[in-house]
Amino acid sequence: MVPRYARPAMTAIWEPESKYEIWFLIEAHATQKLADLGVVPESGAKALWDWWKTEPGIDVAAIDAKEAVLKHDVIAFLDWVAEQVGPEARFMHQGMTSSDVLDTTLAVQLTRATDLLLEDMDALLAAIKKRAQEHKYTATIGRSHGIHAEPMTFGLKLAQAYAEFDRCRTRLQTARAEIATCAISGAVGTFANINPEVEEYVAQQLGLAAEPVSTQVIPRDRHAAYFAALAVVASSIERLAVEIRHLQRTEVLEAEEYFAPGQKGSSAMPHKRNPILTENLTGQARMIRSYAMPALENVALWHERDISHSSVERFIGPDATITLDFALARLTGVVDKLLVYPERMQKNLDRMGGLVHSQRVLLALTQAGITRDNAYRLVQRNAMKVWESDGEMSLLELLKADDEVASAMTAEELEDKFNLDYHFKHVDTIFERVFGE
Amino acid sequence: MVPRYARPAMTAIWEPESKYEIWFLIEAHATQKLADLGVVPESGAKALWDWWKTEPGIDVAAIDAKEAVLKHDVIAFLDWVAEQVGPEARFMHQGMTSSDVLDTTLAVQLTRATDLLLEDMDALLAAIKKRAQEHKYTATIGRSHGIHAEPMTFGLKLAQAYAEFDRCRTRLQTARAEIATCAISGAVGTFANINPEVEEYVAQQLGLAAEPVSTQVIPRDRHAAYFAALAVVASSIERLAVEIRHLQRTEVLEAEEYFAPGQKGSSAMPHKRNPILTENLTGQARMIRSYAMPALENVALWHERDISHSSVERFIGPDATITLDFALARLTGVVDKLLVYPERMQKNLDRMGGLVHSQRVLLALTQAGITRDNAYRLVQRNAMKVWESDGEMSLLELLKADDEVASAMTAEELEDKFNLDYHFKHVDTIFERVFGE
Amino acid sequence: MVPRYARPAMTAIWEPESKYEIWFLIEAHATQKLADLGVVPESGAKALWDWWKTEPGIDVAAIDAKEAVLKHDVIAFLDWVAEQVGPEARFMHQGMTSSDVLDTTLAVQLTRATDLLLEDMDALLAAIKKRAQEHKYTATIGRSHGIHAEPMTFGLKLAQAYAEFDRCRTRLQTARAEIATCAISGAVGTFANINPEVEEYVAQQLGLAAEPVSTQVIPRDRHAAYFAALAVVASSIERLAVEIRHLQRTEVLEAEEYFAPGQKGSSAMPHKRNPILTENLTGQARMIRSYAMPALENVALWHERDISHSSVERFIGPDATITLDFALARLTGVVDKLLVYPERMQKNLDRMGGLVHSQRVLLALTQAGITRDNAYRLVQRNAMKVWESDGEMSLLELLKADDEVASAMTAEELEDKFNLDYHFKHVDTIFERVFGE
Amino acid sequence: MVPRYARPAMTAIWEPESKYEIWFLIEAHATQKLADLGVVPESGAKALWDWWKTEPGIDVAAIDAKEAVLKHDVIAFLDWVAEQVGPEARFMHQGMTSSDVLDTTLAVQLTRATDLLLEDMDALLAAIKKRAQEHKYTATIGRSHGIHAEPMTFGLKLAQAYAEFDRCRTRLQTARAEIATCAISGAVGTFANINPEVEEYVAQQLGLAAEPVSTQVIPRDRHAAYFAALAVVASSIERLAVEIRHLQRTEVLEAEEYFAPGQKGSSAMPHKRNPILTENLTGQARMIRSYAMPALENVALWHERDISHSSVERFIGPDATITLDFALARLTGVVDKLLVYPERMQKNLDRMGGLVHSQRVLLALTQAGITRDNAYRLVQRNAMKVWESDGEMSLLELLKADDEVASAMTAEELEDKFNLDYHFKHVDTIFERVFGE
Repeated sequence: MVPRYARPAMTAIWEPESKYEIWFLIEAHATQKLADLGVVPESGAKALWDWWKTEPGIDVAAIDAKEAVLKHDVIAFLDWVAEQVGPEARFMHQGMTSSDVLDTTLAVQLTRATDLLLEDMDALLAAIKKRAQEHKYTATIGRSHGIHAEPMTFGLKLAQAYAEFDRCRTRLQTARAEIATCAISGAVGTFANINPEVEEYVAQQLGLAAEPVSTQVIPRDRHAAYFAALAVVASSIERLAVEIRHLQRTEVLEAEEYFAPGQKGSSAMPHKRNPILTENLTGQARMIRSYAMPALENVALWHERDISHSSVERFIGPDATITLDFALARLTGVVDKLLVYPERMQKNLDRMGGLVHSQRVLLALTQAGITRDNAYRLVQRNAMKVWESDGEMSLLELLKADDEVASAMTAEELEDKFNLDYHFKHVDTIFERVFGE
Repeated sequence: MVPRYARPAMTAIWEPESKYEIWFLIEAHATQKLADLGVVPESGAKALWDWWKTEPGIDVAAIDAKEAVLKHDVIAFLDWVAEQVGPEARFMHQGMTSSDVLDTTLAVQLTRATDLLLEDMDALLAAIKKRAQEHKYTATIGRSHGIHAEPMTFGLKLAQAYAEFDRCRTRLQTARAEIATCAISGAVGTFANINPEVEEYVAQQLGLAAEPVSTQVIPRDRHAAYFAALAVVASSIERLAVEIRHLQRTEVLEAEEYFAPGQKGSSAMPHKRNPILTENLTGQARMIRSYAMPALENVALWHERDISHSSVERFIGPDATITLDFALARLTGVVDKLLVYPERMQKNLDRMGGLVHSQRVLLALTQAGITRDNAYRLVQRNAMKVWESDGEMSLLELLKADDEVASAMTAEELEDKFNLDYHFKHVDTIFERVFGE
Repeated sequence: MVPRYARPAMTAIWEPESKYEIWFLIEAHATQKLADLGVVPESGAKALWDWWKTEPGIDVAAIDAKEAVLKHDVIAFLDWVAEQVGPEARFMHQGMTSSDVLDTTLAVQLTRATDLLLEDMDALLAAIKKRAQEHKYTATIGRSHGIHAEPMTFGLKLAQAYAEFDRCRTRLQTARAEIATCAISGAVGTFANINPEVEEYVAQQLGLAAEPVSTQVIPRDRHAAYFAALAVVASSIERLAVEIRHLQRTEVLEAEEYFAPGQKGSSAMPHKRNPILTENLTGQARMIRSYAMPALENVALWHERDISHSSVERFIGPDATITLDFALARLTGVVDKLLVYPERMQKNLDRMGGLVHSQRVLLALTQAGITRDNAYRLVQRNAMKVWESDGEMSLLELLKADDEVASAMTAEELEDKFNLDYHFKHVDTIFERVFGE
Repeated sequence: MVPRYARPAMTAIWEPESKYEIWFLIEAHATQKLADLGVVPESGAKALWDWWKTEPGIDVAAIDAKEAVLKHDVIAFLDWVAEQVGPEARFMHQGMTSSDVLDTTLAVQLTRATDLLLEDMDALLAAIKKRAQEHKYTATIGRSHGIHAEPMTFGLKLAQAYAEFDRCRTRLQTARAEIATCAISGAVGTFANINPEVEEYVAQQLGLAAEPVSTQVIPRDRHAAYFAALAVVASSIERLAVEIRHLQRTEVLEAEEYFAPGQKGSSAMPHKRNPILTENLTGQARMIRSYAMPALENVALWHERDISHSSVERFIGPDATITLDFALARLTGVVDKLLVYPERMQKNLDRMGGLVHSQRVLLALTQAGITRDNAYRLVQRNAMKVWESDGEMSLLELLKADDEVASAMTAEELEDKFNLDYHFKHVDTIFERVFGE
């Protein structure tokens, strides 16, 4: 976790306090159910909850000190709680294993983290939608291979981003469901020493599903699917970040990250206004993506479990969620405050002397009875002249002056093919598909 | 693609013939709709379908030869079809771009591939279920950290695998939906030269959904999610493969891959019976997993598209699906014919002198009023003796002879804690959760 | 392996014929040494070499047929050779295991493959060097963050690429040394049944080093290091490919991939000239990079070996080397024939109204006694005006007209800071560092 | 960075204090050289060093506060230093860019980190060597595919590990050389505003090489190669960790991680002694390996630089080196204190009824004139009986009783083939190869 890429609400989920709080809730709910089942005295559960109602706070340092001696974190925690609660606490953890606590806790943490990510995503979607509607008909050049292709609108670019992040939202929801399970099934998952009803009760209390079959641990294919989903979201962040970086290039400059008064772009070059936020997001995307690999390698644990997944998760649990939370929020800010330059978009659109309309002419020529191959040749020979003139020549004028073309299409017919609005007639349809309105 | 890890049905999907057949279907359906809309003459569509009804076959070599000259695959294909069909073919591809064809084709191929994978998965699930029910109550030792933990049944191991692959089945279905979209939206996705109804019609004909907003290409977050899902499935394959490899170890030998009469395990060591199929699967899992990385890097294409994703997909499209198809089938065979040795399982269970029952004793002692800490100490001091005797000593006998223990529990009470069936009382519950029956 | 990204010389290394030829050489050399040591009769070795001298050719199909029955490739091969050579062949493979043959063969294949890659790299370096010297003083704008920074030369860009690929050349040589070892040490590496001198002799004959300690297999950290090195080379290919893609963008257009007469850039847009070769290389780089991951996972084989690495290597051995060979050759072609447009470079350089000289003015102002902070403010306030005018205004003229600036520097002093040659005075030094001449 | 997997010396390298200290050194050395060259007054350099000699300490909080306003870290630092040193500090950073400082600092940090890693590696090698010599002739079974193969010694296992980590040591040294370069070359690497001699001087003072050609930044292929090397080292750590985990399995138990008195293996199962350190190392290896991917993606920066690498390096710079440092030290401790059980090794060796000697018999039979195929058949039919008896039957006795075998070899000849020492005759040779003594 890199502090400068971390926000408090997400970070808090991964603090020891949160962890121990969840541990306590699991133990207390389990003890409650054990009492209901008559396995332990009701006084055992009551003692725990009575203590908890005093809002005692967790003394992390005291538990850490115990762990340093005992070399076992859950035992250290249980010892500490027992010291606070008194002898009735001995009924806690009956028939459970450490992993029952640890794995269910991870499920709670990841679930909470995903809820924050879903909020982040909603904010991002709202920001994109607002800007998309604002620029629904702002004309801009569409580019394939970095080369001018055909006209489109800036709103369409953002509609694409919206649809992509809307898919990512669904992926996050699916990912949340993957990891929102509770396992309290004992040392190898047989429930030998604990009734499956305890698992079901604790799951319900914590808003989780009971894991159908666990093996001391919750199976790690769930977590692999979870971190893989985050990797996809990160890649979509990278895509929009790269788009903005391209738009801010000196020669393109159709949009810019907001530049705060007083901000210095470069210690050496006072004129610089760099897309540093989206570059930064590009790197963060690489990191979040990379965390999917160890998560995938974690799946093949040995037999009923080995603990090799644990050190991995100590890294990627916090790092992936904290960084993604930060990245989504940063991207939302970038989109929200993005400086958009419609005049520059128009200027760029015009700079190729009308080449962007070449396909329309090609189609018109074939419809006028010329074979596709011939039509292609006719358009290309004029297009190449415009191309080589660096946009100084006009494709329309050259076509009018081309005898073969002129024999197939009148000047008026040709001019009609250079009308920008032609390209925007289905923008409404697409917006309806994406925004449903 | 490695031929020895490829099966014909899946491989066929990726052959040029299949690709060109899908290309033709897209072009012909699109021309049909264009004719219905009155954009091109009905004769244009009819000519195409009339020719197709002759079951003409695709001359891959002829198309390749054209591509070598034209350096453009779709144009080469269109030229070749035009030669076969005659002048009416000139209405084909009106307002479309190559990517409309290529991307929709990839969607069809991946969809078909996933249908095969789902069939594979069904076969695997059936095989696992059969063996799980066969060994529902076959006692075996559960292991954590590679160390004996508590008794379980071999059926439970397989139930876990079943549940995991059942989740993988759902992931494959989700992944299929991710990539089952059709885009016919033109050079930058504006439908400038083609009516969106064409896209919807072709999508319907091919069993796909229309892509809400495309940008010459179908957005690659879909494919990233697809290959990431395959990576998770591969990791689950690895998990079961590793389990079997462990069980076949000389010292464990609780199960073995089927060993065909006449098979030689080693050119040098005639006694060897190696788990080569599951080792092989482990390596294949690594490969399938690795394909997720370039798929994730493919998401951030430049602007409305660049073609960097294409070379990646020429590798991973076939390689990931063909290898996963092979791996699922191979694993199904391994499970189906797995040699299971219940006697050896029992022998291993017994080899630790009853240590596997230590937790039950621990719990009983606490219930008899001894503090947890004391109970732990009492059990551990006897357990350690058994451990150090390499299973020669019996935990039950030692406990009976331990005065502190004896003061809390009678010999009969202790004996009761060493009953294996105690561990199997919830097997039914778990099977019901997993198999729903 | 994707045929369209494969060249014959590299592909041949991975054909079954090559593999079996190397198998034979290893077996024959080993038998020769065994004969020299008196372990087997001289006639055993002689029979093998006599047969080989007849240039018999390898009947791959016949060996495959045997393998289908025997389910063991090396035994199938030995059987087939024995049929050709006669009873004297029975001394072949004495004390050896399959892995002695297979692993040493892989070493020979990877060594040969690397030799081709080194040739490719030499060709690439030569092409870059030629173009670097051609454009040693071709002025162009240097860019950071995609934003104009300061002037440089196009030759310097290429010098950087040269230095980078020169490092990659060293990395390939190091990687070659990593995997160029021979192991003939028996079932677990003890040489129990074969004299270590056989290993040393065969290594020498094949141009390899003897593996100091093997364990049936050559340790896979070597191969991991090898494929990791290829991943780095691929990333450097991506870097130069991305540079060219940027330079070919419509708005930049300082260089272009060679565009063959008759080539069609787009089936729909006749004017398009797309950087498809470098986009293609970008995707190939992703693939080659991805192969490092399974190679790294292959390291931790179980005990003295498991065979999980083998299926991985059947993919990545050919795929990584064949694709990298193709990519290096493709990149060499791109560089060699790259269309470079110095006029456009100059036009771009000029388009920011002199902003690129801002740092020089900043420094001059501080040297004229103004505090750095003040100097920064003075330059920035004028620079921002130029920036917002989209290069219509001139920084030089604005500075001359700025009273605070004018009080520190004369018009002549200011003009002197806008001299392009100032930036090129150390080009010679850098070229000397890179090209040593 | 996960605190529990971090050691102080390595962590300190990545603290802000260290970073700012290196920043100062770079600035001060550069100013010194600028003064020597007459570019700035000698008093400028003197003022910096005079202040430094007072051992002023770095006020990280003050610099952070400035950065919060200025949004530029290097400018914030320079401002703070200027406040401390006074007006003479204005000559600092003349002609330099932030990246000159940042990239050279990263080089110093990675170089220092690698020096610690090399020390760690020396300690690990020493520990392995000591244990290897201790167990040079401790007989143990060698395993391939997890199946007993042929006898070897435990010392040989460790000799293999030694050789592997010795290669890793070389890789670390190579990696160190990759990233030990200094760049002070200005905004796009032209040295326009700074003499290349400054770079050379600072490089020398810091123990680095001058980067031959930089482009504002040091090229990232260097860092990719660096982190890829760390990934290979991590994979070798995983290999030895997995070996130990296997050896500690209940059924194998030939070695164990040291188990401290008072340590609890499981909160529920008092008898457990789990290989948690090596499992933990396995997970850490996955993480360190994963950091190579974003490092490889960092290579293709845009033009002369973009800053997307920076966020990645804020993660992986500390995380990879700190975790590897911890892992090497932990592994050293594990090896150093490993509990080795030679009796259990012997017991395991014996458990297969002599099957491990089957190859020797096979060879002897062929040397006695039986064809290889027949010999294989004879050995296999007896071996299979032993195999199926679970080691209860003796291969030697069965062979003696096999008429076909007996007709080729006497009982004495057969017995001679079951001598363990036969396998150890080249241990000395291998040790000499590995340890050179």
